[in-house]
Amino acid sequence: MSALIAVDIGGTTMRAASYPSSSLEPIKINKIHRTNSSKSVFQYLRELIQSVWVDSQEVIGLSIASPGPINPETGYIFNAPNLPGWVDFPLGEKLRDIYSVPIFFGNDANFAAFGEWKYGAGVGHSNLIYMTISTGIGGGIICDDHLLTGQNGLAAELGHVVIQPDGPLCSCGKKGHLEALASGPAIVDHLKEQIGKGYSSSLALIKNFSAIDVAEAAKNGDKLAIRSIERAGETIGLALASFVHIFNPSIIILGGGVTMNGNFLFDPLLQKLKVEIFETVYLKDLEVVPAKLGDDSGLLGALAFARNKLNMN
Amino acid sequence: MSALIAVDIGGTTMRAASYPSSSLEPIKINKIHRTNSSKSVFQYLRELIQSVWVDSQEVIGLSIASPGPINPETGYIFNAPNLPGWVDFPLGEKLRDIYSVPIFFGNDANFAAFGEWKYGAGVGHSNLIYMTISTGIGGGIICDDHLLTGQNGLAAELGHVVIQPDGPLCSCGKKGHLEALASGPAIVDHLKEQIGKGYSSSLALIKNFSAIDVAEAAKNGDKLAIRSIERAGETIGLALASFVHIFNPSIIILGGGVTMNGNFLFDPLLQKLKVEIFETVYLKDLEVVPAKLGDDSGLLGALAFARNKLNMN
Repeated sequence: MSALIAVDIGGTTMRAASYPSSSLEPIKINKIHRTNSSKSVFQYLRELIQSVWVDSQEVIGLSIASPGPINPETGYIFNAPNLPGWVDFPLGEKLRDIYSVPIFFGNDANFAAFGEWKYGAGVGHSNLIYMTISTGIGGGIICDDHLLTGQNGLAAELGHVVIQPDGPLCSCGKKGHLEALASGPAIVDHLKEQIGKGYSSSLALIKNFSAIDVAEAAKNGDKLAIRSIERAGETIGLALASFVHIFNPSIIILGGGVTMNGNFLFDPLLQKLKVEIFETVYLKDLEVVPAKLGDDSGLLGALAFARNKLNMN
Repeated sequence: MSALIAVDIGGTTMRAASYPSSSLEPIKINKIHRTNSSKSVFQYLRELIQSVWVDSQEVIGLSIASPGPINPETGYIFNAPNLPGWVDFPLGEKLRDIYSVPIFFGNDANFAAFGEWKYGAGVGHSNLIYMTISTGIGGGIICDDHLLTGQNGLAAELGHVVIQPDGPLCSCGKKGHLEALASGPAIVDHLKEQIGKGYSSSLALIKNFSAIDVAEAAKNGDKLAIRSIERAGETIGLALASFVHIFNPSIIILGGGVTMNGNFLFDPLLQKLKVEIFETVYLKDLEVVPAKLGDDSGLLGALAFARNKLNMN
């Protein structure tokens, strides 16, 4: 029996699994949290792949989901913000020196979109927008059953779209991007700003609270925390209206930690999206749903992509 | 010899031409300006098609470029702003009642993109953004040699993307869209506003000047006119940076009357585009060029699309 190995290289957690040819149940699965040891990211990656390798099976391919811009043909990483040393890093070349099986590469959000389309919330849809909202905002687009990659595999960076020209600075260094207005850190920053202006919140006395703390406070009825989440929802709804005018999809799938805020996020998001669409026919048969694959989206997306390339379905 | 008939239904000027199977030289070509007569738009269309019909040839297809949102499968027009009576208009049904040849439909900007890709400035490119900037702003996208249409053929409405949430009202009724900030009428409105504030311009004494007047004034050195065009250029550059992050194209093709402003528009546009790209690799091998097909882009796009569908190349 043949097996495929899928890897999801996250910012701090790295996941890998080996899969048989026609099931989503892994043969072996493993994850590791990178610490600031002397071990390189690439060494972690090699050991992780080794740990899910299946000796008795024939490994027929390796599929790697990577954060940040990567060339899907060559596996060349332009810049992976949270991975030390991975700027202009020839990941493809280094892996191909070791493994003689076909190796596939893709941006993690693009692969997650592909996974949701093939195995998750997007099954049956030909035109799909996937967006993940957590520390950053990433995206993946399926047009006519085809993953949008662009000329160098850098397409669908939906977090890096200008929403407010003079808005706050984005992690990428530009101003007013969606990510700078509606990601987890953006929610935290906005709440801190409001507290600084004298508005009251149960988080006022905590120095370095996180987006998870804001979510918890909102659940406990903290009005300022709720408002900060709602504001992010409205901004995402506004951006999605533009994306709907660009892609005319039949489904929008939203994943990532920030979507755990449930209706605090989704209610204002949906309301704003509907209001900002300029022609109601766009809303006909348009679904907006949460992602289904959760933490496994990167792995299952990488798997789906490799199976597709190998004509395995 | 077989012939294809292409039609471009503009706002006031309607063009049609019949083409032989493997040339871009029309057999017959004609255009009419609609006036406010009692004749319906559909009647004009029928007469125009008749005028380019080629009796001695076998007409093997009809291809129609239409303004505004149209379903390319059915030819159903959702809303064509400048065509009286064309709201929820079953154009496809009405034409198929008359003509028994295959009929193809598409949004005019989408077809223009297709035409530029097949016969114009985009030949050889697989990932292309086309934008037309005139009374409105429209777009067309080619991804991996495939025209982006979306689920109902409404994709690529690049003019209806939010650039400035509290910006001026767009012709579509929503706020802060690119079209409301950088189209011909937007340039005129901004200049009028500046004149109203007391800034001097050679156009100050003309009551209802047009975007063409602004272009003329700019050529004659009118600083305020030049600034109004530059401002539109910057806004388009900002929007294009977002579109580059979304599509990662190898070429951007700009058409429409406003591009006749040349460097007044292109210089600030290119500068802003470069500054707003968050990762320089997007700019590698990215060309930004004027459209090549001019007034014939709709016709040649419709022709290209029909030939593609009929596997004629």
